[in-house]
Amino acid sequence: MRERVKQIFRHLDDGVDLIVLLNATDPHIDMSFFYATGLTDGLFEGCGAWLTPDGACEITTSALEEEAAKKSELPIEVFRSRDDSTKLLRERLKGHRKIGINAAELTHATFERLRTIAPKSAKFVDISDAVMEARLVKDAREVEMIQRACSIASRSFEEILPFIPGGVTEAEVAAELVYRMQRNGASGPSFRTIVGSGPNGAEPHYTAGPRKIQGGDMIVIDFGAMYRMYCSDITRTVVVGKASDEQKLMHDTVARAQAAAFTRMKPGARGKSVDAAARTLIDGTKYKGRFIHGLGHSIGLAVHDGAGLHPASEVILKPNMVFTDEPGVYVPGFGGVRIEDDVLVTRQGPKYLSTTARELLEL
Amino acid sequence: MRERVKQIFRHLDDGVDLIVLLNATDPHIDMSFFYATGLTDGLFEGCGAWLTPDGACEITTSALEEEAAKKSELPIEVFRSRDDSTKLLRERLKGHRKIGINAAELTHATFERLRTIAPKSAKFVDISDAVMEARLVKDAREVEMIQRACSIASRSFEEILPFIPGGVTEAEVAAELVYRMQRNGASGPSFRTIVGSGPNGAEPHYTAGPRKIQGGDMIVIDFGAMYRMYCSDITRTVVVGKASDEQKLMHDTVARAQAAAFTRMKPGARGKSVDAAARTLIDGTKYKGRFIHGLGHSIGLAVHDGAGLHPASEVILKPNMVFTDEPGVYVPGFGGVRIEDDVLVTRQGPKYLSTTARELLEL
Repeated sequence: MRERVKQIFRHLDDGVDLIVLLNATDPHIDMSFFYATGLTDGLFEGCGAWLTPDGACEITTSALEEEAAKKSELPIEVFRSRDDSTKLLRERLKGHRKIGINAAELTHATFERLRTIAPKSAKFVDISDAVMEARLVKDAREVEMIQRACSIASRSFEEILPFIPGGVTEAEVAAELVYRMQRNGASGPSFRTIVGSGPNGAEPHYTAGPRKIQGGDMIVIDFGAMYRMYCSDITRTVVVGKASDEQKLMHDTVARAQAAAFTRMKPGARGKSVDAAARTLIDGTKYKGRFIHGLGHSIGLAVHDGAGLHPASEVILKPNMVFTDEPGVYVPGFGGVRIEDDVLVTRQGPKYLSTTARELLEL
Repeated sequence: MRERVKQIFRHLDDGVDLIVLLNATDPHIDMSFFYATGLTDGLFEGCGAWLTPDGACEITTSALEEEAAKKSELPIEVFRSRDDSTKLLRERLKGHRKIGINAAELTHATFERLRTIAPKSAKFVDISDAVMEARLVKDAREVEMIQRACSIASRSFEEILPFIPGGVTEAEVAAELVYRMQRNGASGPSFRTIVGSGPNGAEPHYTAGPRKIQGGDMIVIDFGAMYRMYCSDITRTVVVGKASDEQKLMHDTVARAQAAAFTRMKPGARGKSVDAAARTLIDGTKYKGRFIHGLGHSIGLAVHDGAGLHPASEVILKPNMVFTDEPGVYVPGFGGVRIEDDVLVTRQGPKYLSTTARELLEL
């Protein structure tokens, strides 16, 4: 993990001599703790990672997480009480002048605690941007884990297709999909599964409810697996029975928009231009204005992993970044279509990590 | 929800004229947003709840969450861009002198954003303690949801028992249990399910791995359902086949410790005295020193919902608080036993919300 720590420091101005990533209570955990330590399991409430410019990383952990922390093979110091932990923090902060914090994932209360404990002369600087820049470009191990998360999700989706037309509810489809992902090796879903059937598909952030799936329904299914802390995020839209002409047209429009954006996902492309490829296409059809969210987002240790592809996005795509490509069209009262894949940017061009068929499936 | 907002202000010194609860990106969401708004579904990234001493609560939301926010029946303002959101924040902060923030669940970056936008004369005060005090005492609607979360988890656990001795892995048992909870009405698990078999049971925060469950194994199963954002958290320890004398003794010791703590969970009791009831009992046996974590924690919108029962806990139990009662004994190399229930404190004494049998089950 030395290279990851060095990556973070490379994105920083000179002078930061220590970075501390400090977790609060679940869910207020800094995912960069896992990035820097390479740990891929465990909760690590109250634990810290201490990074120095030479690429070193050390862990401070509660006794409860000691066994889990050891899996990192990094130097570890264990605390057994709040006082103990404060003492440990004080010792580690001593002598440092410019201390980096990841303000985007640190609670304000934890920051205040650090500030109180640190020497008066110490200055804290927010290094969130450097952490984000580093995390955006995945190393080989990270790509492999995202690939696994994608494969598990793709395969699980295919397995549950026969279940959908059987008079079940949206929530039951979601349960079935999560179950298959866990059986196929996921530690869990990477976010709450969306199964939006019929009119519910028109609400992009709908989850899954008691609505019984009916013949003729178009269903937006947005799902992802977590594999060793890494996420996948895929959406497919299917129809129960024969698709109507309108359903086919919506799906076809979104599919063409998704493909248009995909071809632009090359090193050097700017986020907003990738978004524009899909948006321009949709806005040139009768669905103008119906694509009401950004095109995609970086994915990794978090589902929303630091950068977005949207009309104001200035991010420049680099090899080994992974972004979702997920245009959608939403017609209130009628329903929605979204097609989403996880795309690895490579020197040779974009590569789909999610593989399940992108065509409109009639179940 | 007016009463909840008033509850928060009741725990505050005079002068705070506005409380702002502001979410960052998932998972950095302030669960108090859901407490104050009464919303029980949705993600609400970047959204805010604005609380005033008269008990009013208003929501600022992105367009993406507008439909979900409407379910609160509270006044809503929608923003469509980052600039839009900044403008909205500026208007809302204007004229306020003493602004409360929930520092325990607010990111430092979001705090800095608020500070920059707010009038220079405004003072920010951390009102985390008041929020925690309010959230510790559940209202009738909250108790009902925790009860539902407990019932779903209890029933699902009973349903998967026949599955355990069938040559399956820990991870497969976890998948099965999560599946049953979702099929029984949970929106998902409330945390990552623990299935620690044989020696793995000795690690309190172990999750579930590829180990195949074997005859003679003692298995710690720690699980919970989420029902409309509210959590349950239950642990049972079972044995595959006939329990050995040692396994029986460990289980019996923990069961007696759990019961001893349970009887002390009455209004007026102090957290550390409840913990001591279980700890003294265990430390009077050959398992002295093997109970290596706190006795329990408050449960509600979060699994660790603001207060703990441990040797240093000064929390005073009040009617309608809900705590876990979860002593354990851990013997490295051999295994562990933990028994955990969710207990409602009432004027008439403690009441189990989780119901599945507490005896050692031989499967």
